Amino acid sequence: MRTRPLKVALLGCGVVGSEVARIMTTHADDLAARIGAPVELAGVAVRRPSKVREGIDPALVTTDATALVKRGDIDVIVEVIGGIEPARTLITTAFEHGASVVSANKALLAQDGAALHKAAEDHDADLYYEAAVAGAIPLIRPLRESLAGDKVNRVLGIVNGTTNFILDKMDSTGAGYQEALDEATALGYAEADPTADVEGFDAAAKAAILAGIAFHTRVRLDDVYREGMTEVTAADFASAKNMGCTIKLLAICERAEDGGSVTARVHPAMIPLTHPLASVRGAYNAVFVESDAAGQLMFYGPGAGGAPTASAVLGDLVAVCRNRLNGATGPGESAYAALPVSGMGEVVTRYHISLDVADKPGVLAQVATVFAEHGVSIDTVRQTGKDGEASLVVVTHRASDASLSGTVEALRKLDTVRGVASIMRVEGE
Amino acid sequence: MRTRPLKVALLGCGVVGSEVARIMTTHADDLAARIGAPVELAGVAVRRPSKVREGIDPALVTTDATALVKRGDIDVIVEVIGGIEPARTLITTAFEHGASVVSANKALLAQDGAALHKAAEDHDADLYYEAAVAGAIPLIRPLRESLAGDKVNRVLGIVNGTTNFILDKMDSTGAGYQEALDEATALGYAEADPTADVEGFDAAAKAAILAGIAFHTRVRLDDVYREGMTEVTAADFASAKNMGCTIKLLAICERAEDGGSVTARVHPAMIPLTHPLASVRGAYNAVFVESDAAGQLMFYGPGAGGAPTASAVLGDLVAVCRNRLNGATGPGESAYAALPVSGMGEVVTRYHISLDVADKPGVLAQVATVFAEHGVSIDTVRQTGKDGEASLVVVTHRASDASLSGTVEALRKLDTVRGVASIMRVEGE
Repeated sequence: MRTRPLKVALLGCGVVGSEVARIMTTHADDLAARIGAPVELAGVAVRRPSKVREGIDPALVTTDATALVKRGDIDVIVEVIGGIEPARTLITTAFEHGASVVSANKALLAQDGAALHKAAEDHDADLYYEAAVAGAIPLIRPLRESLAGDKVNRVLGIVNGTTNFILDKMDSTGAGYQEALDEATALGYAEADPTADVEGFDAAAKAAILAGIAFHTRVRLDDVYREGMTEVTAADFASAKNMGCTIKLLAICERAEDGGSVTARVHPAMIPLTHPLASVRGAYNAVFVESDAAGQLMFYGPGAGGAPTASAVLGDLVAVCRNRLNGATGPGESAYAALPVSGMGEVVTRYHISLDVADKPGVLAQVATVFAEHGVSIDTVRQTGKDGEASLVVVTHRASDASLSGTVEALRKLDTVRGVASIMRVEGE
Repeated sequence: MRTRPLKVALLGCGVVGSEVARIMTTHADDLAARIGAPVELAGVAVRRPSKVREGIDPALVTTDATALVKRGDIDVIVEVIGGIEPARTLITTAFEHGASVVSANKALLAQDGAALHKAAEDHDADLYYEAAVAGAIPLIRPLRESLAGDKVNRVLGIVNGTTNFILDKMDSTGAGYQEALDEATALGYAEADPTADVEGFDAAAKAAILAGIAFHTRVRLDDVYREGMTEVTAADFASAKNMGCTIKLLAICERAEDGGSVTARVHPAMIPLTHPLASVRGAYNAVFVESDAAGQLMFYGPGAGGAPTASAVLGDLVAVCRNRLNGATGPGESAYAALPVSGMGEVVTRYHISLDVADKPGVLAQVATVFAEHGVSIDTVRQTGKDGEASLVVVTHRASDASLSGTVEALRKLDTVRGVASIMRVEGE
């Protein structure tokens, strides 16, 4: 074994960073044996240097992250500060000064992955980011390496623990969205400002990263259709139960059936209770991958948290350190397929639509005609009525989102349709 | 991209090999883009050269596997013939002649993994074998790389599709073992001689491989305790249902609680219906991995079959080809921890024991005394009796296998115990 240590610098020492530092210390011998050389924590950039950080030598702590990445003797930078800046500039500077980078920064990777990969390649460095998607669950590496000889057609998953906790709570207790969110906040599953989670931004960033790797095509955050889950109601869960379904916030990356384009989207959807994703509870994550040869694979585990995310970071750290000792780099960006990324209109799926309608004869015929005119085939209709008010619940066969939108627009213009109570996609069949 | 192709030779062209060859041809452009150089099928060693193999140039086919591996211009040998010899000699010869090896050979890896890894290392070559365990499911790579910075404490899984199909059938239809086996054979899930599957040899080989990687310790097939599932009865399933459980053939690799040793075993066990492994149906495989930092991860997918296994082989092929272009090798054997592998006696788990006893007062007290004398604590007892015959079903708290064996031996000597109807371990809690 080489005795001269590889030097690692941490950018950020919060929940994840402090756990990375802890494991680097407590498991130093294991890491050295697995890498083939010792690793040394050579610097830690933080915002608040006065905070006591157990187990970390105060002499290593600095507020000057830029000076740290410019030192030139650092082998690997671990970036766990998150957000776009200063993370982007620090990572780019690190590459320029000879370091490889392990990052957990989904927002940055989803926005600027291509440029960062280019910077890594230009400097013969590695950029690894298993921790950016689904915490501890190995997903980037299986997609990028294990399935490198296969053709992935779909990635379908629960990649945000906060929203899964809220939806699971609504499902199991009948609580409304606000009540479930309050509980998630009280238990520390939701942040004070939950926007990034509940509006689907976090999941959309992960969808962009997964789609890019799965389809060997650049997919940016802006390419991902995004719908949050703040408008999911207890009534929606009741409707879902009637159909033998539950509701999950799903990230879905698909290759079009003709193989000529791909889509990526995040939205709440009904899925059958018999689908393995339906039983993913609490803040857990799970991702289905469907490919030509392998068939259906599922990966399940804790999607967030300090220790699980640190596990993913350290797995990457070991790989990057091994590469460095080998004088090699791991697989970089693979975007050769360069497939067009289609918008939501071209997505084909099923829909569950609840309409408030006038309780009089002929309404169903009118509604059915509108669906037919837009080429949307109806699977089932359920009609209920009392006191002159009635509702129609329509479940469609597979149709394009554009056709469905056209249908809904036309339905709203019917005199007999008083309102469209809810529209929800049905997935996982 | 490099234009000179990497040369690949196939040893074996059965269900898996022919699928590997097919994908290498139909997805040649994708593979080239992902590797950074084209790959060329340069030879195929088979036993029956006269068999027509669609899509394979007959000029590539040979019966002389030894000459093929000695050619010296082959970059990667893909070994999918299985069994110990001639596979072992061919792989060793391939290393000596400069090739790296991708293998799906669990029996050989479980028996001679250390020697083969040594041969690979001596010749600066790679030995990859994702396809040897759980077909298409990425498991070797996540354990060896994604979790390289973590400490794995347990691997628990269903790693044999044939036996899972049979047990699932018994569970869902009430069929006996033979009837379910006959159906599995008729459907092609079981081989004409099902011994390797139903007696647990196949699962034991996989357990040895998984334990070795998970614990960085050499674990050979002989180190794995093995009990097949041919004696599982419809009555056992009825007992399991009474406990809210089902029965699965599990491969379990564990680090002892004190961390000082490891165990690996394969046997039928009851697991609660609420455990995710309980709902793994048909010929699917699923593996739970528990580690210090990541927590519980699960990997699920098709555990066998030509295309899924080919997916795993090709993922390895891409990785090995990339390494070759990089002039590097991937992670080799990691056995530095060299922990002692304990026997079954030191395994600690729970037990479900059915006893046929005399239907008279005082029997329960006698039986309970025997458990107490051996230090095995009882969780629940259920007593049923009719017509002078009675049965006792005892479920224990966690105890060592040695204590339980001692208990059972003593129970058999009691006059009032007419027989031990079944003993089954209870896992997954």
